Amino acid sequence: MVSKAELYNDYRTKMQRIADVRFANALLQWDQETYLPPKGAAFRGRQISTLSELAHHLFSEESLGSTLQELLAYQDLTAEERRNVELTWEDYTKNKKYTSSFVRRLSEQSNKAFHSWIESRKQNNFSVFEQDLDALVQLKKEEAGILGYEGHPYNALLNEYEKGATVTLLDRTFSGLLPSLKELLDKIKAKPQVDDAFLFQHFPHQQQWDWGMYLVRELNFDFEAGRQDISEHPFSVSFCNQDVRITTRIDESDFGNMTWSCIHETGHALYEQGLHAAQYGLPLGEACSFSMHESQSRLWENNVGRSKSFWQHYYPKLKQYFPEQFHHISLDTFYKGINKVQPSLIRTEADEITYHFHVFVRYELEKKLIEGSLSTRDIPAFWNEQYEKQMGVIVTNDKKGCLQDVHWSHGSFGYFPTYSLGSFYAAQFFAAAGQSLENLEANLVSGNSAPLLTWLRSEIHSKGRQYTSEELCKKVTGNTLNVQYFMDYLLHKYSSIYNL
Amino acid sequence: MVSKAELYNDYRTKMQRIADVRFANALLQWDQETYLPPKGAAFRGRQISTLSELAHHLFSEESLGSTLQELLAYQDLTAEERRNVELTWEDYTKNKKYTSSFVRRLSEQSNKAFHSWIESRKQNNFSVFEQDLDALVQLKKEEAGILGYEGHPYNALLNEYEKGATVTLLDRTFSGLLPSLKELLDKIKAKPQVDDAFLFQHFPHQQQWDWGMYLVRELNFDFEAGRQDISEHPFSVSFCNQDVRITTRIDESDFGNMTWSCIHETGHALYEQGLHAAQYGLPLGEACSFSMHESQSRLWENNVGRSKSFWQHYYPKLKQYFPEQFHHISLDTFYKGINKVQPSLIRTEADEITYHFHVFVRYELEKKLIEGSLSTRDIPAFWNEQYEKQMGVIVTNDKKGCLQDVHWSHGSFGYFPTYSLGSFYAAQFFAAAGQSLENLEANLVSGNSAPLLTWLRSEIHSKGRQYTSEELCKKVTGNTLNVQYFMDYLLHKYSSIYNL
Repeated sequence: MVSKAELYNDYRTKMQRIADVRFANALLQWDQETYLPPKGAAFRGRQISTLSELAHHLFSEESLGSTLQELLAYQDLTAEERRNVELTWEDYTKNKKYTSSFVRRLSEQSNKAFHSWIESRKQNNFSVFEQDLDALVQLKKEEAGILGYEGHPYNALLNEYEKGATVTLLDRTFSGLLPSLKELLDKIKAKPQVDDAFLFQHFPHQQQWDWGMYLVRELNFDFEAGRQDISEHPFSVSFCNQDVRITTRIDESDFGNMTWSCIHETGHALYEQGLHAAQYGLPLGEACSFSMHESQSRLWENNVGRSKSFWQHYYPKLKQYFPEQFHHISLDTFYKGINKVQPSLIRTEADEITYHFHVFVRYELEKKLIEGSLSTRDIPAFWNEQYEKQMGVIVTNDKKGCLQDVHWSHGSFGYFPTYSLGSFYAAQFFAAAGQSLENLEANLVSGNSAPLLTWLRSEIHSKGRQYTSEELCKKVTGNTLNVQYFMDYLLHKYSSIYNL
Repeated sequence: MVSKAELYNDYRTKMQRIADVRFANALLQWDQETYLPPKGAAFRGRQISTLSELAHHLFSEESLGSTLQELLAYQDLTAEERRNVELTWEDYTKNKKYTSSFVRRLSEQSNKAFHSWIESRKQNNFSVFEQDLDALVQLKKEEAGILGYEGHPYNALLNEYEKGATVTLLDRTFSGLLPSLKELLDKIKAKPQVDDAFLFQHFPHQQQWDWGMYLVRELNFDFEAGRQDISEHPFSVSFCNQDVRITTRIDESDFGNMTWSCIHETGHALYEQGLHAAQYGLPLGEACSFSMHESQSRLWENNVGRSKSFWQHYYPKLKQYFPEQFHHISLDTFYKGINKVQPSLIRTEADEITYHFHVFVRYELEKKLIEGSLSTRDIPAFWNEQYEKQMGVIVTNDKKGCLQDVHWSHGSFGYFPTYSLGSFYAAQFFAAAGQSLENLEANLVSGNSAPLLTWLRSEIHSKGRQYTSEELCKKVTGNTLNVQYFMDYLLHKYSSIYNL
């Protein structure tokens, strides 16, 4: 009989091999969105499909299943070992529900859809995307059936991104928050608007790039273990905690577009760089959940990156990069401008309040698509109607409307709600950090965000998937998710900005 | 019973999946040499190993073997189908000789060796590389045994790059050529040296990059189906004929370094871009051999890219990129300068004559390493002694000596001889092109290299692996390889440059 150590080693070896294939596939995708020459798209699509299928196949092997079952029967696994094996067993049994052919169809279709999404944006025309998107929606419905669910079929998809999330819970969270958000928004609308015109001067490409790279470095992103590149839609991706990549985009007439995408993606990347290299390929070497990931990006982007404290240190630096553009702009004007609240078209550029209406529209739309009460063809009409209803925003074209996000082209239905959850967790974590770290504000004022990162590393990053989002939140803050932290944060911040 | 069409389709599907894994692995390697952050190296190494092993495993499956055998028994395959199946069977039976564990050990060791090679170059110290290189040499000896051979064990490795090449044949080729080369070299040495100091002025990075990109485009490299990036050592790589990538390096104090590497790698890339997309994953969609590949890069680099005709058109363009540097330099001076013959340290910067002494030293060294008459530790001493003996060149340090080429760190023993063969074939092909294309020179003088490319596409590129190098050479030129074409080309060219 093999020893426990041998068996665990066998398990780890198998998992690391699967991780190798998945990360190779992640590189194919990173390359697809950064450097792939256009004619290479079709072959790249099939390469990605093959690797998806192979990873699926390796993770479905009976021999892995029996190794896991043998390990589960051992009494003397360490706590870490047991947690790894239990989580892997959970993932394994879920993965076994998918056939190879379904994995391949899904991967091929999302690849096709990605390229029609690109093309539809070029043509500013949803109908170019519609057919491929619809095929993907049908596959996702099929997937919900494969995974199984209680209540709403969308629950099955939500669970892929956030274990335990349901339509019931999210409906309750949104309906508990949106009225207060709307009330705050109305109060703000009644006040004189802050000026942010200075953010829309000409900001040359190279200087923005240099400034962005400076900022990413200042936030302690490790460039020996990662890089930043340009892509259509900013994202972060990891091929191991020693190679974590982020992308950004540059709009020369919009300062905010790149700057806060840099900070946001850096937040994601700092989480990945903080995972345990020794747990490569194993659950404890992976991030807890999508909402936890987003809590890190939103915490850095907003709680830190749009705070007065942060800019007390960095605004003088910024002026060195763009002396002409910011010469006559005071820190106070800058701070107010970057926090301007105004209903708008683009989610990734939305302020911290209206952002959640953007997410809510997508959430409602996805629910309806998956339950079949909305057809793919009717997405633009539904989208446009909801934007007007929720925020009074008139959508003028598809590119600035329902074509703005890449997610659906990847088949990521159920992902968007984690964006809102991320902001809510971020507020709760940032409040807890303020309690734990005596000089948090003072450190940020002096440009020292390292203690905050150290705290996040020890409290969150290093834990991997040891806890669920809610367990982790309770461990770190003493409570499960409470949206009141988020509302308090907003009320405190915007009362001073808008003199409420 | 399944139909022939179904069976062939099954074969093709299997091969395309293997190609997907191999090309994914090629992307991991491209990224490793272009964009990989330094700390990512160890994990990248294991990812590459895993994909090598997977590709090997897929190509060893019994079910593929039986599909191939069934197909071979069919009488009604088309000629193309039969050739694909026969070549695949040949590759398959060879691949079956390797165990997965050997493939993994080789891949892991060459990855380790690649990184110690990088480090040894940084430290300019061969001993940093020695241990990992030696482990690799031992593995290559083991490989020779696995593959089997007649005569010299090095024959087994040569065959990996050039089917049919043997120590006997190469010894004969080199001993037939080197005395004439030496004689020509001595005649040149007796003449006044041409001036090339103007090539070593300051050439700013960005302008070189722009000029290189212009030139690559002019040579009809399709940037919709490929790209160029920067790496330590220039190379070309293909992920399908619609995504072919080249790399270059820029030395601001050496104009030639980048320019001819751009042309050389473009030559390789034009071959790959000219392969049949419909034959993706199959032998007829692959290049014929390493020497044929090199014949294309050398033909463009030298027969075209160092010819008077070519520069009659491009020298005025070049002057627009570097007006100050070339203002006082006539076309004639430029042409002579870029063809200066002088024994030197670095192979990739060597002139067309001494280049083959560089290759010969590596060939002799590899033979001895593999037969065990030279130990890895003694490489620098042997290298330095041979450089002095063959060319009268004193090697001043390892970086400019035995550490200059990446190949050994990849485990590529047996590769270098194909470089010389490539030049010899190139001369023979270029002579044949001159016979077939009435206006070849006139077209080059007017900057139109498209007819030459069209000819190469139809005569060589489109054939894939249909013929062996020697068969193809005979089909295209009427004769098998004859080094006299190469000598005639050199004599004609240098007689005019050096007034011999």
